[in-house]
Amino acid sequence: MKHFLSVQDMTAKDMIDLLEMAQSFREEEIRITKQVFAANLFFEPSTRTKSSFIIAEKKLGMESLEFNVESSSMKKGESLYDTAKTFEAIGANVLVVRHEADDWANELKDKIAIPIVNGGAGTKAHPTQSLLDADTIYQEFGTFENINIVIAGDIKHSRVAKSNAEMLTKLGANVYFTCAPDFQDKNLDYPYITMDEAVEIGDVLMLLRIQHERHNEFSSSTVNYHENFGLTIEREKRMKNHAIILHPGPVNRGVEIDSDLVECERSRIFKQMSNGVFVRMAVLTTQLLNWGIIDEYHIEKRNNNCRGQSVSNMRFAN
Amino acid sequence: MKHFLSVQDMTAKDMIDLLEMAQSFREEEIRITKQVFAANLFFEPSTRTKSSFIIAEKKLGMESLEFNVESSSMKKGESLYDTAKTFEAIGANVLVVRHEADDWANELKDKIAIPIVNGGAGTKAHPTQSLLDADTIYQEFGTFENINIVIAGDIKHSRVAKSNAEMLTKLGANVYFTCAPDFQDKNLDYPYITMDEAVEIGDVLMLLRIQHERHNEFSSSTVNYHENFGLTIEREKRMKNHAIILHPGPVNRGVEIDSDLVECERSRIFKQMSNGVFVRMAVLTTQLLNWGIIDEYHIEKRNNNCRGQSVSNMRFAN
Amino acid sequence: MKHFLSVQDMTAKDMIDLLEMAQSFREEEIRITKQVFAANLFFEPSTRTKSSFIIAEKKLGMESLEFNVESSSMKKGESLYDTAKTFEAIGANVLVVRHEADDWANELKDKIAIPIVNGGAGTKAHPTQSLLDADTIYQEFGTFENINIVIAGDIKHSRVAKSNAEMLTKLGANVYFTCAPDFQDKNLDYPYITMDEAVEIGDVLMLLRIQHERHNEFSSSTVNYHENFGLTIEREKRMKNHAIILHPGPVNRGVEIDSDLVECERSRIFKQMSNGVFVRMAVLTTQLLNWGIIDEYHIEKRNNNCRGQSVSNMRFAN
Repeated sequence: MKHFLSVQDMTAKDMIDLLEMAQSFREEEIRITKQVFAANLFFEPSTRTKSSFIIAEKKLGMESLEFNVESSSMKKGESLYDTAKTFEAIGANVLVVRHEADDWANELKDKIAIPIVNGGAGTKAHPTQSLLDADTIYQEFGTFENINIVIAGDIKHSRVAKSNAEMLTKLGANVYFTCAPDFQDKNLDYPYITMDEAVEIGDVLMLLRIQHERHNEFSSSTVNYHENFGLTIEREKRMKNHAIILHPGPVNRGVEIDSDLVECERSRIFKQMSNGVFVRMAVLTTQLLNWGIIDEYHIEKRNNNCRGQSVSNMRFAN
Repeated sequence: MKHFLSVQDMTAKDMIDLLEMAQSFREEEIRITKQVFAANLFFEPSTRTKSSFIIAEKKLGMESLEFNVESSSMKKGESLYDTAKTFEAIGANVLVVRHEADDWANELKDKIAIPIVNGGAGTKAHPTQSLLDADTIYQEFGTFENINIVIAGDIKHSRVAKSNAEMLTKLGANVYFTCAPDFQDKNLDYPYITMDEAVEIGDVLMLLRIQHERHNEFSSSTVNYHENFGLTIEREKRMKNHAIILHPGPVNRGVEIDSDLVECERSRIFKQMSNGVFVRMAVLTTQLLNWGIIDEYHIEKRNNNCRGQSVSNMRFAN
Repeated sequence: MKHFLSVQDMTAKDMIDLLEMAQSFREEEIRITKQVFAANLFFEPSTRTKSSFIIAEKKLGMESLEFNVESSSMKKGESLYDTAKTFEAIGANVLVVRHEADDWANELKDKIAIPIVNGGAGTKAHPTQSLLDADTIYQEFGTFENINIVIAGDIKHSRVAKSNAEMLTKLGANVYFTCAPDFQDKNLDYPYITMDEAVEIGDVLMLLRIQHERHNEFSSSTVNYHENFGLTIEREKRMKNHAIILHPGPVNRGVEIDSDLVECERSRIFKQMSNGVFVRMAVLTTQLLNWGIIDEYHIEKRNNNCRGQSVSNMRFAN
């Protein structure tokens, strides 16, 4: 049994299975008939990821526990491990964790006997975000083959950049980076292009948020950031007809993207968020099935008071 | 389709319909059989309004999402609009918003495609509070005609004063104000009387909280506030036999009202809070019905495992 | 009708009844079919107690309301009484309260008409913690007669020490204290022994957390605390074969207990937390039954869509 911690752990088949399960959840409401508790341990501010997980859990009929760091025993110096172990002891069936440390999972993964889902870790990994980006691309193009995906922004400090580049490459897409010189990450081996090249060749332009809260100050390379490196109205006009715009949010309007483009026709920014709920439902369901916490008999269609509608014939049976 | 934003938007008939639906909910427990998500976005401290909405939602069988500003992406500078749009995207079916700005709804109302319920805005509007006050008066007197209602306290800074005066006037009551000179609002056209006159003529004495947190300092007019402008034990004795006392809470005991009067026989202060839940159930249900998110088939009596008890014959069918 | 406030209020029979109900809940999942609201008012940081209550409520099928002091009207100066009365008014059926004052319940207990459960008060009482400790001992030994229980740590500032000593004595166990000289409480009449004696005679070694947040500074008696007064690896080896280790958490690893012993074979530290959920289910259920908020007809086995499985023959019927 494996936790859901990083893109590295997944094969392309694992990813496609999750995307197809997400699609099945978009098409038909289901719920888990067994009482299952998810503990959402978010140690960093989050609106969309945390709420998206909670909605995913509630759509599955799970019970959501929210952990508020401010009013918790972490204030008394309790370690992440002891906090996680406590939630396991009191009855959590799955943990969703967001943490500022890159390696938070190391001290947990071999000692916690319930599945752990990474809700965003430090600067390295955000695998459910990567999946929902992949989901949105798959929904749009039906394939990843020969799709040019340009990831633009603060590559160095973005957990999304690393996770996404790896996942999309595994899925067969061509991944490029574009960013201000200070934001390059020499450890990542993808071609760097300019923003002007990006809008010409990209089928998908994936913008990242400039992480103000991770920089003490803007360096010289971020002067005139929008004009030099952002998606301006002028650049958007040069994009391919069918090309789409993604952004994990929250958006810095007027920095990485012109405010008027956030909801333009080729933007899938809010569509991505909608997809995120279904992708997270798929991740949670898969983890619960893989760990034997539920079996398929516990999954039934909503709005049906009688049990027995086993979903053994659904495509995510494995 | 309209959001539920202000008293100005409502006719007297709209109000009475909501009061009658609230009454029906007091008499019989119901629940919505469809899964419906309410996102409660409270950008100001609140105990009773927020908890009242959440209880209303849970009594209706809805799913409640709580938004904690402290642990949210608002910390990363996200706008109210983007936050609201995010909750719409991830599956909220209705937004309940409390915000410190008078005009927060302006940037949302034409661009958010789900109903928005005003949970209290700046110094101007608090329409569900007005409704629950009206509900308590209607329950007591069965009418608003010829009822003298005196609103007492910090008229200038109270969103309740403005909303209530307008609603109760529309419903046919006679509205008066009484307050310390510094708390008068010249823009509101209602007769100002003294507290001593108020206790003589009022059928309803509606006290407001002195909003310490909105004043940098107490002005000279608030010296001896309780004796000069508050409801003292002596003044209460001069009230009409059938007259009642309202207060939206939280109460400053010993300031606007003597502590011993908070639960006196003519106080409806905690009764109001109870009523608030049913009024908010009515507002939420009406919004969901008006926007087509549910239809009457989705409303059934609680404690009944079989569906089919359509409420089409309930009085709030329209 | 009584609130659940302190160990003093309980007879040995009350305690055993609760332990047996907890055991029945471990064996079979049940739920309350009536909609019942629990308001969890935690005025001090808490992970395990608060989450444990919320899980207990959800396992019972209750609705949990969480009260966040930071975003509440307590910021506007509202009293505990008014806050509690508000939750009663808006529909809470039971209050779970943790508060820093020893005597917080005094102003509530005669004026709040719904049951109040003490979730931990000041330095004096934490009766559900005591119950879960007793539950773990009862599960282990099947009796309290002739069981030597040594409570070790900051006796003076620990609400657990006082509650537990009283409860376990009532239940028939032999209770001892061991601690650094500064941590002794002269008002408690139990024999003080050394830690070296404790490991020799104890069947149960109940460690307490050093309450850093209640001390402004460590006194001289806490220098080399672990070596002088803590459970070292060396001391653990001298414990009786069947002896067990308890700790209410959160643990200060390396202070009151060596980090490697937290999950050693004789540790029941995480088992206790698991038990806590069932004990709290029993407390809540008993309060709801005693106050007539539910009757036994409202308790049914989970995973059974048909009602009618009255539990009148379950052992907690009284």
